[in-house]
Amino acid sequence: MDRRKFLVGAGLGIMAATAPISLSAMGAATKKTTKSGRMTLKFLPFELKLRHAFNLAKYSRTSTPGVQVKIEYEGVVGYGEASMPPYLGESIETVTKFLSKVDLSQFNDPFKIEEILAYVDAIEPENRAAKASVDIALHDLVGKLIGQPWYKIWGLSLDKIPQSSFTIGIDTPEVVKQKIKEAEDYKVIKIKLGLDNDKEMIDIIRKCTDRPICVDANRGWKTKEQAMQIIEYLADKNCLFIEQPMMEECLDDTAWIRERSPIPIIADEVFHRLPDIVKLKDYYDGINIKLMKSTGMSEAYKMITLARAFGMKIMCGCMTETSCAIAAAAQLSPLIDWADLDGNVLIADDIFSGVKVIDGKVMPSDKPGIGVTPIKGKYPEF
Amino acid sequence: MDRRKFLVGAGLGIMAATAPISLSAMGAATKKTTKSGRMTLKFLPFELKLRHAFNLAKYSRTSTPGVQVKIEYEGVVGYGEASMPPYLGESIETVTKFLSKVDLSQFNDPFKIEEILAYVDAIEPENRAAKASVDIALHDLVGKLIGQPWYKIWGLSLDKIPQSSFTIGIDTPEVVKQKIKEAEDYKVIKIKLGLDNDKEMIDIIRKCTDRPICVDANRGWKTKEQAMQIIEYLADKNCLFIEQPMMEECLDDTAWIRERSPIPIIADEVFHRLPDIVKLKDYYDGINIKLMKSTGMSEAYKMITLARAFGMKIMCGCMTETSCAIAAAAQLSPLIDWADLDGNVLIADDIFSGVKVIDGKVMPSDKPGIGVTPIKGKYPEF
Repeated sequence: MDRRKFLVGAGLGIMAATAPISLSAMGAATKKTTKSGRMTLKFLPFELKLRHAFNLAKYSRTSTPGVQVKIEYEGVVGYGEASMPPYLGESIETVTKFLSKVDLSQFNDPFKIEEILAYVDAIEPENRAAKASVDIALHDLVGKLIGQPWYKIWGLSLDKIPQSSFTIGIDTPEVVKQKIKEAEDYKVIKIKLGLDNDKEMIDIIRKCTDRPICVDANRGWKTKEQAMQIIEYLADKNCLFIEQPMMEECLDDTAWIRERSPIPIIADEVFHRLPDIVKLKDYYDGINIKLMKSTGMSEAYKMITLARAFGMKIMCGCMTETSCAIAAAAQLSPLIDWADLDGNVLIADDIFSGVKVIDGKVMPSDKPGIGVTPIKGKYPEF
Repeated sequence: MDRRKFLVGAGLGIMAATAPISLSAMGAATKKTTKSGRMTLKFLPFELKLRHAFNLAKYSRTSTPGVQVKIEYEGVVGYGEASMPPYLGESIETVTKFLSKVDLSQFNDPFKIEEILAYVDAIEPENRAAKASVDIALHDLVGKLIGQPWYKIWGLSLDKIPQSSFTIGIDTPEVVKQKIKEAEDYKVIKIKLGLDNDKEMIDIIRKCTDRPICVDANRGWKTKEQAMQIIEYLADKNCLFIEQPMMEECLDDTAWIRERSPIPIIADEVFHRLPDIVKLKDYYDGINIKLMKSTGMSEAYKMITLARAFGMKIMCGCMTETSCAIAAAAQLSPLIDWADLDGNVLIADDIFSGVKVIDGKVMPSDKPGIGVTPIKGKYPEF
């Protein structure tokens, strides 16, 4: 099978770049205020090259668009980022347009996180990844001003962090074997299903490893019967959970599946913001929180409280992104059941250090804020 | 009317004291660990004398039992307290017995708030005030270690704090007038109804002041029709909300009242812990969070997230307690609709400074933790 045939769709290959893209034609890519004691938001589009082509049920890509964000306040810098996989409807253009509207100079106190984020959220109804980039940078800044990492500010214990899965894309047996070898640090393997060859893919994985697996169907199963067929095939194969078996709108079919499935059914594409939890609790066993969907750390933290009140399972996923957003998610991972925080490993050149995989767990550093450090020579100047 | 005739019931007068009560007959009143870098919990029963006799629908008292708590860690002291009004089923005996079982020496890191509080919560099913005293002291300690007050750690803005009500007990017109005069700092008056003379009481209040009022029926109305009669009488009298119109078990009657009432109906005695919110959301418009019911600040903060997800109104009340527990509640009051944090004003001799009433709002100080300072000569040695 030619791996290149997966490179379909949005012509993303053209945009692949490890160097910063100048957005001068789009207007100011950075934003400054002159007042002292005020916050300054700066941002820079920054495409992330992937280590492997990423093959999902509906598309494939070799790079992923991203935007790096900094909030500066009295000499302290908070780092954030937006990662925009095409299916979420955001792009370099929408994110930079949104960030251009964010005027933090009206706030003289970064500690007013709730008020600042309420302002940011009200600028536009969508733009969740753009909002997340501000939220992450603000948390990093405030954590640094406090002098503590967020897991400590939230009162969490690192030894409660669950093992993270590592995602293996749909591919030829040879490539899958190679990828599983690369994933030896991780104790749980996640596979993306939802194509015609699901059972084959499961068999390939099970030939390569006996580690527990998680399944992300990525809305790929067309009927509830098709879904149940694969789920039954998975039932005795040590599968921890199944994400998004069918399309978002198929709620009743999903409830039908959930009732019959011995494996928990988790909401991903259908789940974005806090109020969705109330709507989804009768159809799914759990939720997949991703910072780029939740608008960041603040709302993700609230999601966990709400989902727990309903007895729901919680996983925390990610996009393909640098250690910046991964570290931000890792801060709240002591509160979740399953982590799926491998996004930084999927990119070719990480520009931050600050997360480590220890015993299969994605651990944040003990540094304040989100705990990351830009890597000299890799983190772009802006 | 003789005010002394209100002093009925539990013989609390005998226990009234402003000086610490020795509990040596009950065993060790303090708890120490010898290891360094560990937390030490100490506690001391401390009865609070009331400024006025406190007259509710079901009983009256001149003092209130309390327990002062300290958690020490590497020379830093976090302050907490338990306040035990008789109707919550806790007493000096139950609180000190519970606190004797709390062994914090097993934790070497006070930042692990979630883990420590989960341990404390699991010691016994009830003892909510005792648990709150540990939670408050731990938050005070960690806030001091961080160097920030909790409202800042939680990302809140002080200018979102709502005006607090001041409670005027059922009494003779002369005493009510005197109390309203004393309450001139407050812009909202709360009255306790649920006796036979409710309309009289409303008339007395409305003769004395045109400030907005809140009504706490304290489960005192016997039938839904009786409740609606008073509520209709209140409808054009600038009443913000009505707490606990009927007994806890009268959920359907409460829903009946709620459907007809032009004034929001708030759950108080029926509401204690986080999971209650899911049960009560279809019967009440909102909840009254009190730290002595919620087991402290951590769960209270989660309650706000959950209640907001259901579109519920939130008030934060208190017991008769020192500025310690009031300051703790004030930390999260930027998130609520109505504050009712006058408990420290009701006691004769406060032992902490650290909250101020500004423009009718109970404001925490800018000091770290819960922001209080023990008053020399008043705060007991232990």
